[in-house]
Amino acid sequence: MTHEYGATFPRLRDAAGTVWRDYTHHAFVEGLREGRLPRKAFLGYLVQDYVFLIHFARAWALAVTKADALEEMRACAATVDALVNHELSLHVKTCAEAGLSEDDLYSAEEHPANLAYTRYVLDAGHSGNFLDLLAALAPCVMGYGEIGARLGPVPDDHPYADWIATYADDDYQQVCRDAGALFDGAVARRLGDNPTATPGWERLCQRFTTATRLEVAFWDMGLSFG
Amino acid sequence: MTHEYGATFPRLRDAAGTVWRDYTHHAFVEGLREGRLPRKAFLGYLVQDYVFLIHFARAWALAVTKADALEEMRACAATVDALVNHELSLHVKTCAEAGLSEDDLYSAEEHPANLAYTRYVLDAGHSGNFLDLLAALAPCVMGYGEIGARLGPVPDDHPYADWIATYADDDYQQVCRDAGALFDGAVARRLGDNPTATPGWERLCQRFTTATRLEVAFWDMGLSFG
Amino acid sequence: MTHEYGATFPRLRDAAGTVWRDYTHHAFVEGLREGRLPRKAFLGYLVQDYVFLIHFARAWALAVTKADALEEMRACAATVDALVNHELSLHVKTCAEAGLSEDDLYSAEEHPANLAYTRYVLDAGHSGNFLDLLAALAPCVMGYGEIGARLGPVPDDHPYADWIATYADDDYQQVCRDAGALFDGAVARRLGDNPTATPGWERLCQRFTTATRLEVAFWDMGLSFG
Amino acid sequence: MTHEYGATFPRLRDAAGTVWRDYTHHAFVEGLREGRLPRKAFLGYLVQDYVFLIHFARAWALAVTKADALEEMRACAATVDALVNHELSLHVKTCAEAGLSEDDLYSAEEHPANLAYTRYVLDAGHSGNFLDLLAALAPCVMGYGEIGARLGPVPDDHPYADWIATYADDDYQQVCRDAGALFDGAVARRLGDNPTATPGWERLCQRFTTATRLEVAFWDMGLSFG
Repeated sequence: MTHEYGATFPRLRDAAGTVWRDYTHHAFVEGLREGRLPRKAFLGYLVQDYVFLIHFARAWALAVTKADALEEMRACAATVDALVNHELSLHVKTCAEAGLSEDDLYSAEEHPANLAYTRYVLDAGHSGNFLDLLAALAPCVMGYGEIGARLGPVPDDHPYADWIATYADDDYQQVCRDAGALFDGAVARRLGDNPTATPGWERLCQRFTTATRLEVAFWDMGLSFG
Repeated sequence: MTHEYGATFPRLRDAAGTVWRDYTHHAFVEGLREGRLPRKAFLGYLVQDYVFLIHFARAWALAVTKADALEEMRACAATVDALVNHELSLHVKTCAEAGLSEDDLYSAEEHPANLAYTRYVLDAGHSGNFLDLLAALAPCVMGYGEIGARLGPVPDDHPYADWIATYADDDYQQVCRDAGALFDGAVARRLGDNPTATPGWERLCQRFTTATRLEVAFWDMGLSFG
Repeated sequence: MTHEYGATFPRLRDAAGTVWRDYTHHAFVEGLREGRLPRKAFLGYLVQDYVFLIHFARAWALAVTKADALEEMRACAATVDALVNHELSLHVKTCAEAGLSEDDLYSAEEHPANLAYTRYVLDAGHSGNFLDLLAALAPCVMGYGEIGARLGPVPDDHPYADWIATYADDDYQQVCRDAGALFDGAVARRLGDNPTATPGWERLCQRFTTATRLEVAFWDMGLSFG
Repeated sequence: MTHEYGATFPRLRDAAGTVWRDYTHHAFVEGLREGRLPRKAFLGYLVQDYVFLIHFARAWALAVTKADALEEMRACAATVDALVNHELSLHVKTCAEAGLSEDDLYSAEEHPANLAYTRYVLDAGHSGNFLDLLAALAPCVMGYGEIGARLGPVPDDHPYADWIATYADDDYQQVCRDAGALFDGAVARRLGDNPTATPGWERLCQRFTTATRLEVAFWDMGLSFG
């Protein structure tokens, strides 16, 4: 079983080298998989991840402003709406059980590792074009897809069953496949049939790899809460 | 029956002076009302208005990136999604009857009056903050609400029944009331209880008035197609 | 004598077709050349052009934020500084003779044709990358260079001697050659050795041609003041 | 002797509380003052600080695009030009002595603490208005001014004489006074005579304090290289 999510993503992932595995097989992820991750680390991560998703949604909204085709706009707009009007519910529900309201989450102080990641993605968009932004958005979207597919399914009594199911479920896997198709179409439109041979390719690899490095630092932050 | 759509909008509208009436009672609008507007003018307008709405959606997406509160993000994200994934249907349907595909609409050459308006709104957002952007977005949203409420309802055999119904219907009137509430909340959050006494107020009035001037020029463009 | 200003500019100019000649041989320009342009048209133009240059400087500042190489940043930063701290002096001096202060110029109401042009350029930058922005900046920079080279030199008693000298002088011609070199380097860095064969080329042509169309509308506006 | 640099800065500094002293009296700074800072930490810091200044210049360029007054544009444009065309020379010269070329500096991999800081400042600008951006720029500009004034003058044989002189010299102190005047004018223009009583004030304090926190993390990064 492979999780390729289109043609562009696996090329960028392979170009990223070992840092991709550092991210998707991080000790934090293995702790989730084995159910050994301290609850305190998980909750600390979840609060930061809520704020992350707020700014990640801002980055998808920026993508709407930078799209060159109607289907690109529509895909990005649907993602923004899904993120801010629907998909924060896992975080809100889990944190509510721990006594945190959504206002607490929204106003949580951002950890520097969190700031670094989301503001880097936003700046990738502001300084570059639609592709630069997608390359910085992809590691989070598809990496969580790979992790979910590897960790799930798990029994309902697994300590992190809800989290794993969120990313293992076909709903999220479809999000990743759709994002892969969006990315492939955007690359074909701008770089043509042989994108890895264009001068722009190297830059996309850098964007993707830097965002992946910032994912590793985000998991490091999570463990530091434990 | 008044259509105030909150407290901020009528203040800005009144500050705009006669240009507001120039916009909402423009000869193009009266032509729609009386059914005398040449079909050619209407279709030329509708093509440009389709492109306008694409860039208007981009401006609402920019607003998502500039919001300071979760409810602001949610309202703006829902607006973007509604615009690009649902609300272009009037344009697509009417233009299809005239033999124009949605691709034709998306790739239509923008008239300078169209460019001037949407790019001004986007720049209001980029150069200023969330309020500056809302002040530039408001004349279109609420002005069409006022026009719809004044022109509708009309009999089904009115030449412009579809267009008038789109903006007269309570669905659209609710969009205007929601936008008014968003605007009032945004003003209270940033300018306090007495916004017209703050140094920032004058700037909002300028943004609103300039956007209203550009609405007048947009109708002028519509008539020029006739 | 040719005024090629590098390799990229003439390719984009040729791709623009007849609209380039509509711009560089516009009746406004011929009026300047022959000295027959009504003074009122010239002054009305000059006031709008002052505001144009303010926003044009903003667009060059946006280019600083989007550069990928140190020499790109340096060239753009020097251009911004030259524009706002030095090169508005022709406008300020000429308008002062007509009784207009620099504050009058800065706060002049922008004509829709002016708004359309500068906000289009800014949005080319915000929605795209450094090259998209340069393609929208180039028609003004290099077109005035071509016009200056064609119209100058003229005797000191020519009614528009100051204006013509500003763009005919080697200082400005060097600005155009430098901008051409910046553009060529930026294209080579991003599109490689055969840029016209890349999918990105068409988009640059569109940006350049639209900005050229907006130059034509700007001269039209100038004549309308006469 | 106080270093107030205007009226706005000391108010924001005082509102930041102890984090301001954490920044300006950080162990890294005391190491510079006493000459005990390991050379390796200093050089590692200097490489990152070079990249920092590149992105800091981008943020000042963004300020040019967001200014509302001619003198604001001029001050910001001059700062950008000074940063990228002149003021990186301390870094280039010192690093050249250690065998690093300017290309090495420009292409150095950014530390996450560096990314976090500069991209936060840029996003403060993109998401807010001119004041939001200035509030995020101020801690670096004025903090280095305070540090320079406290640490200098030192004898020529002090191990960090060049660095200290750069910020202690009246040239840099004047930069801080000018930035203070720019900030005071910008606040008066937008928030009026009693800015601390406006709803916008709290937000400026947050921007300033977060940027100050990111300065602390930047020094931490510097020590980690030792």
